[in-house]
Order: sequence, then C-alpha cells, then structure tokens
Amino acid sequence: MVRKFVFGEPIETEAVIDQVGIEVLQGGTSFPDQWQVVQAETLTLTHCMEPGERIYGLGESMRGINKRGFRYVSWNTDDPIHTEDKESLYGAHNFLVIQGGVCQGLFVDDPGRVSFDIGFTVLDRLEIRVDSGSANLYVIDGEDILDIVRQFRRIIGRSYIPPLWGMGYGQSRWSYPDVESVREVLRRHRENHIPLDAIYLDIDYMEKYMDFTVSEERFPEFAVIVSEMKQQGIHLVPIIDAGVKMEPGYRTYEEGLEKGYFCRKEDGNELVVGVWPGKTHFPDVLNPEAREWFGNSYQPLMDQGIDGFWNDMNEPAIFYTEDRLLDTFEQLKSFRNTDMDLQEFWRFVGLGPALQNNQEDYTLFYHNMNGTLVRHDRVHNLYGYNMTRAAGEAFDRLRPDQRILLFSRSSYVGMHRYGGIWTGDNQSWWSHILLSMHQMVGLNMCGFLFVGSDIGGFGSNASEDLVIRFTEWGLFTPLMRNHSSLGTVCQEGYAFSRPEIFAHIIGLRYLFLPYLYSEFMRAALQGEMYFYPLAFLYPGDEMACRVEDQLFVGQSMMIAPVYEQNARGRYVYLPEPMKLYRFRSVHEYDTEMLSQGHHYVNCELEEVLVFVRQNGMIPCTWFAEGEQPVNIDSVLKADSLCLMCYASEPIRYTLYRDNGLDKDYTAPGKWVSIETDEDGQVHVSDGNTKILHLI
Amino acid sequence: MVRKFVFGEPIETEAVIDQVGIEVLQGGTSFPDQWQVVQAETLTLTHCMEPGERIYGLGESMRGINKRGFRYVSWNTDDPIHTEDKESLYGAHNFLVIQGGVCQGLFVDDPGRVSFDIGFTVLDRLEIRVDSGSANLYVIDGEDILDIVRQFRRIIGRSYIPPLWGMGYGQSRWSYPDVESVREVLRRHRENHIPLDAIYLDIDYMEKYMDFTVSEERFPEFAVIVSEMKQQGIHLVPIIDAGVKMEPGYRTYEEGLEKGYFCRKEDGNELVVGVWPGKTHFPDVLNPEAREWFGNSYQPLMDQGIDGFWNDMNEPAIFYTEDRLLDTFEQLKSFRNTDMDLQEFWRFVGLGPALQNNQEDYTLFYHNMNGTLVRHDRVHNLYGYNMTRAAGEAFDRLRPDQRILLFSRSSYVGMHRYGGIWTGDNQSWWSHILLSMHQMVGLNMCGFLFVGSDIGGFGSNASEDLVIRFTEWGLFTPLMRNHSSLGTVCQEGYAFSRPEIFAHIIGLRYLFLPYLYSEFMRAALQGEMYFYPLAFLYPGDEMACRVEDQLFVGQSMMIAPVYEQNARGRYVYLPEPMKLYRFRSVHEYDTEMLSQGHHYVNCELEEVLVFVRQNGMIPCTWFAEGEQPVNIDSVLKADSLCLMCYASEPIRYTLYRDNGLDKDYTAPGKWVSIETDEDGQVHVSDGNTKILHLI
Repeated sequence: MVRKFVFGEPIETEAVIDQVGIEVLQGGTSFPDQWQVVQAETLTLTHCMEPGERIYGLGESMRGINKRGFRYVSWNTDDPIHTEDKESLYGAHNFLVIQGGVCQGLFVDDPGRVSFDIGFTVLDRLEIRVDSGSANLYVIDGEDILDIVRQFRRIIGRSYIPPLWGMGYGQSRWSYPDVESVREVLRRHRENHIPLDAIYLDIDYMEKYMDFTVSEERFPEFAVIVSEMKQQGIHLVPIIDAGVKMEPGYRTYEEGLEKGYFCRKEDGNELVVGVWPGKTHFPDVLNPEAREWFGNSYQPLMDQGIDGFWNDMNEPAIFYTEDRLLDTFEQLKSFRNTDMDLQEFWRFVGLGPALQNNQEDYTLFYHNMNGTLVRHDRVHNLYGYNMTRAAGEAFDRLRPDQRILLFSRSSYVGMHRYGGIWTGDNQSWWSHILLSMHQMVGLNMCGFLFVGSDIGGFGSNASEDLVIRFTEWGLFTPLMRNHSSLGTVCQEGYAFSRPEIFAHIIGLRYLFLPYLYSEFMRAALQGEMYFYPLAFLYPGDEMACRVEDQLFVGQSMMIAPVYEQNARGRYVYLPEPMKLYRFRSVHEYDTEMLSQGHHYVNCELEEVLVFVRQNGMIPCTWFAEGEQPVNIDSVLKADSLCLMCYASEPIRYTLYRDNGLDKDYTAPGKWVSIETDEDGQVHVSDGNTKILHLI
Repeated sequence: MVRKFVFGEPIETEAVIDQVGIEVLQGGTSFPDQWQVVQAETLTLTHCMEPGERIYGLGESMRGINKRGFRYVSWNTDDPIHTEDKESLYGAHNFLVIQGGVCQGLFVDDPGRVSFDIGFTVLDRLEIRVDSGSANLYVIDGEDILDIVRQFRRIIGRSYIPPLWGMGYGQSRWSYPDVESVREVLRRHRENHIPLDAIYLDIDYMEKYMDFTVSEERFPEFAVIVSEMKQQGIHLVPIIDAGVKMEPGYRTYEEGLEKGYFCRKEDGNELVVGVWPGKTHFPDVLNPEAREWFGNSYQPLMDQGIDGFWNDMNEPAIFYTEDRLLDTFEQLKSFRNTDMDLQEFWRFVGLGPALQNNQEDYTLFYHNMNGTLVRHDRVHNLYGYNMTRAAGEAFDRLRPDQRILLFSRSSYVGMHRYGGIWTGDNQSWWSHILLSMHQMVGLNMCGFLFVGSDIGGFGSNASEDLVIRFTEWGLFTPLMRNHSSLGTVCQEGYAFSRPEIFAHIIGLRYLFLPYLYSEFMRAALQGEMYFYPLAFLYPGDEMACRVEDQLFVGQSMMIAPVYEQNARGRYVYLPEPMKLYRFRSVHEYDTEMLSQGHHYVNCELEEVLVFVRQNGMIPCTWFAEGEQPVNIDSVLKADSLCLMCYASEPIRYTLYRDNGLDKDYTAPGKWVSIETDEDGQVHVSDGNTKILHLI
C-alpha cells in the first residue's frame, strides 16, 4: 500500500509516474505515528530507532548496506575523494526502507537538499530534513522489504535496458586521445585474449571540449573509424558534458543562445561557468523545449554510427563562475603580507578551492520549468536526471527500435527510466571494492539496475592485484567498465605482468552472461532486485542480516568477492547449504559442497568464487575446449548452454533470451523454461536452446 | 648476526648506537645474493619475492601488517588525509623483515628519501631505492622474526619509558583554550565516572603560538593551575611546535637568532617559514649545541610543574616560505583571464596548495652538523627525531631521576630512545581503527613502544559508536589518548548519549594496566614486542599468518577489536584453544572456551573481547564491588590483583611492578613471579603483591 503525503508546495519531479492506487493525503496529520513531523521553515521527520532496526536504501551513497551510523545529504556533488566522511556523492536517491519492528518504505520526493541523519548525531535517532519545507512523501507498507521495493518500482516505472553489448566488457581511460590509441587498445586486448565490447572516449576526442564535436585532427573521418571498430566487434562510446562551450560559430552554442535555452541569472544574462573548455553555459534541461533541443544534438554522432554515450559533469559541476572568479582576483590583490598566521593563511589558500562547486553559485541561476522561473538550488538534484532524460527521450524519437547505451554520473530517482549510472570518480583503493558492493543495493532498490563502478578505480595508481580483485567483483555488475584517470598508471589488463589472469576472469563475464542478463531483465521487467543483500532474502536469519560483504546476483547465485590486499581467502556466511564453484577460467574450476553456517574459504588471486543456492540453476555460455570469448558475439552465437546446478530434486529456471538489441521485451518466446527431471535430464521449452553440459 | 654494508658516504644518523659484534663490509660485493644491488646516482636493491613471502616492518606506514602490494616512501610529511594511496606519513622507519623462504631483516639507514616498492609496480618485485646513493645497510639474519627484531632492537638501544600516569587515559582536543575549559573537561569526566589522568593542551594555550609561552589571559598563574590539576590527579600536557615565531622581545627567538641556532639559507640568512604563528625560524636541532639550547627551553614550563610534552609540526611542516609566497603573489597577478580551460585553471588553483610542504623548500636551508653544512633534504627525516632528542636529552640533564612524558609526531629510528609517537592526524574513519592496529606492529619492530593513535579520530566528525569502538581498541595501546580537531564535533566520552559506556570501557584500561605495563616494560627492557601479529608467534600456521585484524598484547593476551560499523560480532581465528573474556565493565564479564580454528564471536557495542592463550595468565587490578577506577592511583594504590587465567596445569607469569615514576628499572624486586600450583593455589614471590581472585 502506497500513501502520498503532500507537504507544502512540492516541485513535480516526475520521479513517480504511476499514481494509480495511491491514496493522497495533505500534510502530516495522519502521518504514520512512528514519525514525529515538524513543519516549519524546513520539514523534519524524526524516528527513534530500535536497537535491531536496520535502514536500507539511499541509492548511491557512502558507508554500508545498512545505512545506520552516518549522515547523508542528497545534494548532487562532483567530489572525487570518496572517503568515509563524505555526505554527498553524485546522485540523490531519497528512498529508504526501515526493517525492524515495522517494515516500511519512505520516498522523500524533493529535488532540493535533503539530509538523512541515521544515528550519526544521536545513536538511536533517525532524522530527515527537507530544507525546502515542501515535499511529496510516499509511505509504502508491505509484507517485507522485497514487496516494498516492488511497489516502489511499480510507481517509478520500468528501469532502463541497455543493448546487450553494453553488458560486455568495456575499456576506458581519460584518455585514449586519438584513433591510434584506440586501435592499440583493441589490438592489445585481442593479442592478450582479453574479451572486449566497447572502448570509451573521454573528453579528449572532442574539439576543444565542445559537446557533439569530434577532433578532426585526432579522429579524422570519425564515421569510418566507428565503422572500422564495429566490424571488429567494438563499440565506441563518447562522453558528453553538461557545459556548452561559449565559442562563436559552434553550432550548439549559437543555437542554444539564439533560442534562449541556456540557464540565466536574475539579470537575464546567461550564467558563465568555467569547466573543461573554459567558459560555458548550462543548457536548461529542465525546460522541456530546451531538453528536446539538447537531446537532438546527439543525432550527428549517432549518424556517424555511435550507439552509446555517457553523460558527465551534470551535477552540474562548476570549476568557477565568471563572477566569482573576478571577485577572487580582486580579493587576492589584498594578500600581500608574508606574515600570515593560520587564520589568514587559510583564507588565502582557501580562495582557489572555494571556486569549485561553490554552494552560492547554485543560487545564481534559474530554470524555466514550463514557464515558471525556478532558482537552481530549489531543483539542483534534477539536473543530471534531465540531461540524461534529454538524451533518452531523443533516442526514443530518433531510434525508436534500437537500444542505445546511456549512463550518467549524476542522477535522481526517475532517471533510472532513461539510463544507467556509474558511481563516478572512485579511487584505486581496496575499500572501494566493498563500497561499490554496498552502493549497488541502494541503487537497485530505487530502480537503477544498469550500474557499475570504475573497475580498478579512477583516481590514484592501481596495483595489479587490486585491479584483478576489482575485476573479480566488477564482472558481476551490469555495467562492467575499467576506467582510470589522467596521471595515473595504466590499468588495462594488458598493462600488467599477468594479462592471462585478466583474460581468464573477464572471460567469466561472458560465461555467466546468460544468467546475468536474464536476472537483469527479470529485475527490469518485474521490479525485482538484481543484487540482493542476504538480509532481503533471509530476513529471519539474524546472522544473514549482519552480512555486508556478500551479495546475491538474482536469487540463485551468491558472490563473496575478496576485497583485502594479500588475502588468499575470506570468511563467508551461508544461510543455507550451497555449492561453491571456484573458477580460474571458463574451462577451469573446482567445486565444493558447503554446509549452512560460517566458513573460511580459500581464494587465490586468480580465482572467482560463485555459490549456488539449493535448487539453484545458473545457465552459462558453453565454451568448447580451447575456445575463449572474444566479445558479446561469443555469447550470442554460442548455440548451447551449460548449467551450474545444485539440486537434489527436479528444479526449474526461467531464462530470458533475446538478440540483445530489439526493444520488444514482452514478445512471446523471450522466456525459456529449463527443467531437470528426477533422472537429472534437462528439458528446455525452446527448441533453439541446447543444453550440453551440467557442470 | 648483524652485518653492516657501507655504501657511498653515509650520513651518521645515530639510529644504531651499539656496534658491538657487527661485521662491517664495504659496498655491495658480498651483499646477500637474494638482492640485486645497483649503485649509481641512487642506490637500488631489488629482490624477487616468492608467492608466499611476507614483508613486515616500515614502522608507521599505510596498509597492512604484511606490507606487500604498495609503495612506501620514507619522507616525513604532514598530511592529514591518510587514505590508502598515501606513500608518506610522519615517520621514517626503514626497517623491514622478509619472512618466507629466508627470514632476513634489513635496516636502510639513510635520512634522505628512501622508497620501498613492495610488489606495487610489479607484482613480485621488491625494490628499495635510496635517492642519495649512500647508506649504511644493516642485514640481520636470525632464527626467526622475533630473533631478528631482538637483534635490531639491541643495536638501536632501549626504548623510551614513560611515567605510568602517561599510560592512563588522556583527553585532548584542538583546543581547550583556557583554564575554564580545562576544568570543565575534568569535571565532566569525574561526573560521568570516566577515568582520566591527563588533559592535553593544543596550540591555543600559548601566547600567539610562541613555543614555551603560556597565554596570561587564558591561563593566568599557570603554575597554580598545573598544581590545582595535579592535586586532582590530572597532568596537563602542552604541545610544542617546531617553528619559533619571529617576534622581537620573545626570548627563544632572540636567543636563537643571537646564537645562530636557526636554520639558514645558502645566502646565510635564516629561512623564514610560515606556520601557526605566521613567520618563524626552524631551530637547527641537528646542531648539537642548538639542540642543547632548544632542549633547555622546556625548563620554564617544567619549573611550573609540567611533566609531559608532545612535539608537533616537526616533519618539519611548512605552510609557506616567505620567498615562495612572494613569488606566488607575483604569479597570481598574471591570472586575469576568466576563460581558463582545465590546464590553466589547475595551475591557478594549484598555486595555494603548492605552498604547503613544497618539496623545493626543503632544499633551501641547511643544518650545521658538527661544523659541516648539510642541505636539509639530505637529512630531512632526522628533524623530528632531533627535536624530540633535544627535549629528551634536556630532561635527562634537568630531571635525571624523573620520567617525563614525551611523544612526537615526526620520527626516525633512534628517536624511540627519547620519546614515543602518536600516529598524527588520523580521521574519524572506521578504517583508521584497523590502520592503527597495523601501524603498531611496524612501530614496535623498530623500538617505538610508547605509541597510540588519536582515539575517535582527529579529523572529520565522529559518531558515538565509532568513538566507542575506537576506544575499545585504544585501551590496549600504551599511549591512550582521545583527540579531535578544531571544527569537528566534540568527542569526549561525556559528549555522547551513553557516557556510561565510556566509563566502563575506559575503566578496563585500569583493570588491565598491571599486565599492559608489565608487557610494556618487558618489551622495553628485553627488546621484545608489545603488540605481536599472529604471524610472529605462529609462523608455521599458514592461517595465522594471514590474519591482519587480531593482535597479541604480550604473549598471553590476544585481542580482536570490532572495527566495522553496526557490527555486533566478528570473525576470529584461534591458532590454539583460548579462553574468551567478554567484558562490559571492570565488574561485568562472561567467559567462553573456544577451540582452535575459526569462530564468529558476538560482540555488542559496549563489549570488549579478550582472549587468553593456553597457560596464559593476565594479572589485573582488583576492584571491589562498586569501586570504579578514577585515575592511575586506582591502580597504584590497589593492594591486590585478580588473575585472568587459562590453565590446565601449573603456570607462571613474571610481572613487572614499580611506582611508575623512578628510572631505576633494573633494581631488584621489580619482577614478581606469580605461580599457580597443581591445586590451583596462587604463589607470589613478593609479599607486597596480594592475589585475591582468579577470574
């Protein structure tokens, strides 16, 4: 049951699109009584948490799966140092579920600043503060947490589905700046037998960092290059930034200016923001007309064969605004004293950093929302959402039958219908493997299924063992991309001393893909999770509820990645008996039966652990001896499957299969039933699907 | 067996003080052949690590107990953000032990930049680079790692021993800026029954941040305040910084200038460095005369009753040098363009941060080392060592019979004889509990025994549960101090919702203190470790060697702190059967017998786990019912002990006992033998020690 409580004068975010069956109530009089509601300048909800209560959700945020013990602030922020104390990352996903005495979901639908103090300031107090004082609050009651998630997913609409090649392995770096470097990336992957489906182009493919342009010098005859790559089974995926460079003669700039589609200040002039290219304007993607125009701007690249994009810098990130920069130049003039004590020195060195993502700058410009001017800070968290929506809506118009790869850095609930996300500029830190696992749960809960973190870490230098372990986790995330920053060591699999390990473990992605894709589609089409924490599947098992470093992928497969350096094993808790597969490549593995309870399980650097649940079945690609996956075609063209099974009785799995390209997800024949009988024989409902092996 | 290999023209660091029995060899011809040595402009040692080899040591540095997988750079650095990727912290401790096929210790005695790439750049390659090209390399062979550590400890001399009250609980904050705030800290600890022995004074007690001064406004009649506190069982411990303020009329400045005791530039002028007080000079503590003079400057504070100090900013930290600041002002003038692209913008915002601890600034000044001018960067890592040595040597002169509390932020091997260290500006991060555990091992190996980390974390805001868990670890570290930064939430035990938990767990410090102090003294006097990783005690147990989050305190007690938020238990590996004590206060606990192997052990937020080894005995203070420790007197005046025991046969423990103040450590009667007989009766060799209870 979903109830909507309207407080104040909420902004319509279009996060919730299906209002059918939702009871609408005004204000807080009938609000559930486990909450104290105070409505003044801000709207504050307070709840006293029982010792055993756990709080789940909040999408992409720091800390654990259970969000207790920290303060989270929904305020989309470009901050590349994701240490434990960071309150805001790139997305705003104000959905949480309390699991304890009661089980209740809450979605705080407000696009301004919203904070969640979950036992941080006071051990047992959960306090939610909506700075604007207005919000639509959706309260969801249900049988259990999965039921609540399903109800929430129903009202926010179906999650974005990528082309299947977008779930292949992708290699990225800031940057592969020219056609030669791109060709080398492909060549070296193939030479080292590392499968590859996509190469990502970071900002340097553009001409002067101008959106929708391609450098003629570094990528001459771009369409030919795109086609050359596609013939070799590789998709090029360029980045698109939020800021449009102020450059006379540049079409996007001239058009946006002429049509009044850029964000303006109170004085009517366009806001001037410094980002990669120097001075830019922000397209007003909250204005439906401007959104349509900006979305159409993707077309020229698509006409050159591009079928995937990633949208960046759309919090929106600000290096500086022209006005503040001028003011800073002025202020700097006053510093001429060389005898600065700490306070003065801090003021001095703080001036530069204060230019970046300055909170005041977000109050200086306006959006035209259906004729009403709304100050940016009131709707800050909608910007990335609507930039990606611009692209997603355009793709539906321009390529109605084709799936286009699309993911974004910044997001808000609702954007999950138009694209996926990556978790932004993480670091080459061991702790970021575990953080990534935690983030997936919150993201799945609010509909973000096509998600992944930069494998190996974006910032800092990565060591070989870190990238291996990170890949061993990343091979289960729907978006599987290795990405790293300018100025860090190269972290492509072939850059290290043992590329064969990368070939083997990335190969496993293609082995598991029939199951992973099927579970992704089940989650998207039926409002399920893709990653489940153990607490969601075994809510009555106190120990299972404590586990923060194991996840289910779908409901048959449990994973327990190693995320500690030098570890050659780890502890695992099994809520029920399971069969452990320890993989070294698509051809090499061993198995072990494990009882319910605690185990220390060995796991060498080159090994990947997969646990199959009782009566679980995991259909995989069948690779003949000596055969290695090359790209997604190795999965699509494989004419048979093998099954990982743990069954003592007849079992059944329903597999989703299609060509990975078309959008007619509900056409008959997509779901294939695979059953084993009493004699261990396998029966398939679809004549085209051959089962060769039980492994 | 210790061999000394002399490469190039090493600087004498006085880290090694006992050369007896050391074979001295020139250069690398006879260097152990598991190393490839290349001597050119730099000195490079390379070793190919076997898969099973583990590398221990490197003192205070990031990452695990086993140092494999990262690059560490010995270059003392004031950097408060201790993320996984930081190569340099505050200390330089170039001692490591390889444990694997061979077991061998290596001390790279050079005070310039030395880097240790331990499988970071290439998975199996250990590469040590000494930038200067010169070093004394001490190679130590022995039976096992403990034997190697003992040999190393013998040649570097006995570790610093603090007064016993310095091992009581201390409360610190930047800052308790006046006498009223100090009184309040004491009052609120007593009101909440939280034991306390020391209150630390950060920089604001001084007049304009001038070393050895006290603000007359905020601490009028300082000697009276010191005495008032001491009467209530509290020691005040002021901070001393490296930089001496340039202030006409200020005695330390005038004297230093007159005698030429400050570091000078090539042109003969004193280097001008901006730190807390604005412009300062660095005392040249590498010049023996200047060192003596600087040490004597502590006397006025001691004359006012002060008997403990902490030395800070002695890497030495530089906010700016006057010359570079002037140059920066000039450079800033050239930035007037508001259309800065990323490169130009980065140059602009980088100018401020580049002032701080700029590497070039460390090449601009000189030390007078016994008449020879040595450029600072050649001996950089000796600065903090010699500042603390200045104090330590002065204390020996000024108070030959009294132990003075002393610890430092920056250090080099050798400084362990003069004072302890704290691990600098850590953060209120859960990961920093584990980091602190890891750091203790490396520090103990090279003689730093009086060590601890800021409990609760220095930077960032701490939550109550973090500070509780941090305290539960910190109560085992010889230096046990809660400290936090300006601008963060208060993190004294009484600042939270459940101060009784703090009272209880800090009380445990005083319960365990007879054992902790005894193990500390054993480690100091006999060259043992205080904290042992399991790998050192069970080198043949492969699983024990993998454990990175349990430690032995002495050889009878194993601890396994909880360092994960919301955890209510954790995994523990026992290399042999042990008896688990689960403490909730000095009076409340339960016990459990655990078999050898893996266990998941429950541990509620207010609980502390202590494991007693087979035939282990842990003498504790006996507190009668209703009695709570108040400060160190509660331990010293307790006339009886209780024993935690796990024995099936007669066992014996040798306990060190003294008044915690005098320095005659080898006088007879300090070591007391406690034995149990076949009937479980306890016999004590010293008539003054009463054993009341076996618990």
